[in-house]
Amino acid sequence: MPDSVPPFATLKEFAVAIQDPPKPDERARAEALERNRQLTKPAGSLGRLEDLAVWFASWRGTAAPKLSTSQIVVFAANHGVSARGVSAYPPEVTAQMVANFSSGGAAINQLARVEEAELYVHALELDSPTRDIAEGPAMSEPEAVGALARGWRAVHANSELLVVGEMGIGNTTAASAMALALFGGSASEWTGAGTGVSGAKLRDKSRTVALAVEANRSSRSDPLEVLRCLGGREIAAMVGAIARARVGGIPVILDGFVCAAAASVLHALDASMLDHAAAGHLSAESAHGRLLNIIGKEPLLDLRMRLGEASGAAVAIGLLRCAVELHRGMSTFAEAGVASGR
Amino acid sequence: MPDSVPPFATLKEFAVAIQDPPKPDERARAEALERNRQLTKPAGSLGRLEDLAVWFASWRGTAAPKLSTSQIVVFAANHGVSARGVSAYPPEVTAQMVANFSSGGAAINQLARVEEAELYVHALELDSPTRDIAEGPAMSEPEAVGALARGWRAVHANSELLVVGEMGIGNTTAASAMALALFGGSASEWTGAGTGVSGAKLRDKSRTVALAVEANRSSRSDPLEVLRCLGGREIAAMVGAIARARVGGIPVILDGFVCAAAASVLHALDASMLDHAAAGHLSAESAHGRLLNIIGKEPLLDLRMRLGEASGAAVAIGLLRCAVELHRGMSTFAEAGVASGR
Repeated sequence: MPDSVPPFATLKEFAVAIQDPPKPDERARAEALERNRQLTKPAGSLGRLEDLAVWFASWRGTAAPKLSTSQIVVFAANHGVSARGVSAYPPEVTAQMVANFSSGGAAINQLARVEEAELYVHALELDSPTRDIAEGPAMSEPEAVGALARGWRAVHANSELLVVGEMGIGNTTAASAMALALFGGSASEWTGAGTGVSGAKLRDKSRTVALAVEANRSSRSDPLEVLRCLGGREIAAMVGAIARARVGGIPVILDGFVCAAAASVLHALDASMLDHAAAGHLSAESAHGRLLNIIGKEPLLDLRMRLGEASGAAVAIGLLRCAVELHRGMSTFAEAGVASGR
Repeated sequence: MPDSVPPFATLKEFAVAIQDPPKPDERARAEALERNRQLTKPAGSLGRLEDLAVWFASWRGTAAPKLSTSQIVVFAANHGVSARGVSAYPPEVTAQMVANFSSGGAAINQLARVEEAELYVHALELDSPTRDIAEGPAMSEPEAVGALARGWRAVHANSELLVVGEMGIGNTTAASAMALALFGGSASEWTGAGTGVSGAKLRDKSRTVALAVEANRSSRSDPLEVLRCLGGREIAAMVGAIARARVGGIPVILDGFVCAAAASVLHALDASMLDHAAAGHLSAESAHGRLLNIIGKEPLLDLRMRLGEASGAAVAIGLLRCAVELHRGMSTFAEAGVASGR
């Protein structure tokens, strides 16, 4: 399947390329709702699985869609800010984990197998970390556009479902800084344990977040500038991939905090840009719930996961598979000869 | 695989048969914990999936168990109390749904396929409803023992995982009455919408629950008498199946409110009788959370499901499959050459 050619070469062109994205198929939604109403169960008794099936139908454009294969894409990148000790792990771990993805030993490899998904890993210039956001912009415009384009191209045009995730030592610091710049509040509200920092290291991390937003204060009025100045290559790639899916009408399950920060850039540009996206889970990263609340997404799972790698979203694929198979496979009251409610 | 022969012919013998059940394998648990500590992820970052893997290992008696096939057993029965209009559906629906299970059109059929589980349905004398609990005991002792034995025998001795569920128009009324008799409180606190009753019908249902407990007040001091007097055949069969799994060291995922009421009988006899059981989900049935709290189980999912049929527990099998595959399949830091935390 051919790559999708990115229709942009600047941030401004990216913003134009994603304007007026297609709407979900309202006829498919109505037909899915009607089918759901006739299935052999009390009305509403499958709870959120019913909503999920109808949402999926509306994006797949048919009343009872299949979900054969999902596409999981993990982007990896390095962050200059990691030199400040904001993570419990050294930056070399990013490349080591990419090797672990390749040899099948990481969490996401196991989950992709269980969920019958295809896993793609894109390592983005790991030898050239972005600049330290506490000192100035993480990326030049060509760097940010290049990462957006990598994400855009990574999405298969015929994907039935896209899940995006990330690996990047230091990237919860970037995500927290983006959230602070986009939505205000205090640095400490947006800063969490990441890979597992606490106490004085967590306070240092929070100060770094505040410093980064201060060092890039001119970015605050433009979400794509927030991404360029405070994000990182894997975050920009996630923005590009989620946007590509939106323009192509491909439903998406979002992963944890860093993924939500990427999604927030699109939300800040146009709230309808996330209509195709469901929140896979609530991460244990403390600010994730706040971010999901702002972008208007109720998480499907709450398992206190905080790994990244698309792992929470991958577990949620299982819920969507259940929802889709229930919706496709169940008999109607008429087919089964079961009396409907009185 | 041969049925398990029930070692009891009276309720008293049942209570004796389940005394001093085997403990989980502490060595397997310790080895699983040590393996979990070495896997390529920040400590604790897979959240509840880590706990689930270690719990499963302790019951399977090995540090990194497989989960090849789960056994799902659904018991169906009819309730005299349904003549009082406590459900949104007529009692004929129980048999109609059993036919729907047989032809593969029900929710649980689809979920069993997704989760690669084997589904068994036991229809328990549908033509002979239990007596109306608002007037006196639902079952004689031989009837209750017979249903316990049906549940006991339904469990395969070599099951890797057991999931039990039910179908029975009127059975949330029975479950609410059991909870009220076992744990006290008010009838309205324990009574919920079931298949979907509200307003005056819900108030009538609550009054029926109070009436049933009053009509069977002598049962309150003995959990097995509560089961006999206020339960039903499918509920007693679930008690028998969960007990059989406990005695055989087979881990169990519990379904919704009616299943929790069955489990509560064992909990009231001996709290350690549910050590092998995890709560699959929090049902939308209003009293389920209260019951889970009493039996000390935190639900894995909260999808506002309220169907029964083992459906919520079946969705949770997917989480256990993820947990088990993560635990078995991930590389250790040493194997992958990844630096562990600093």
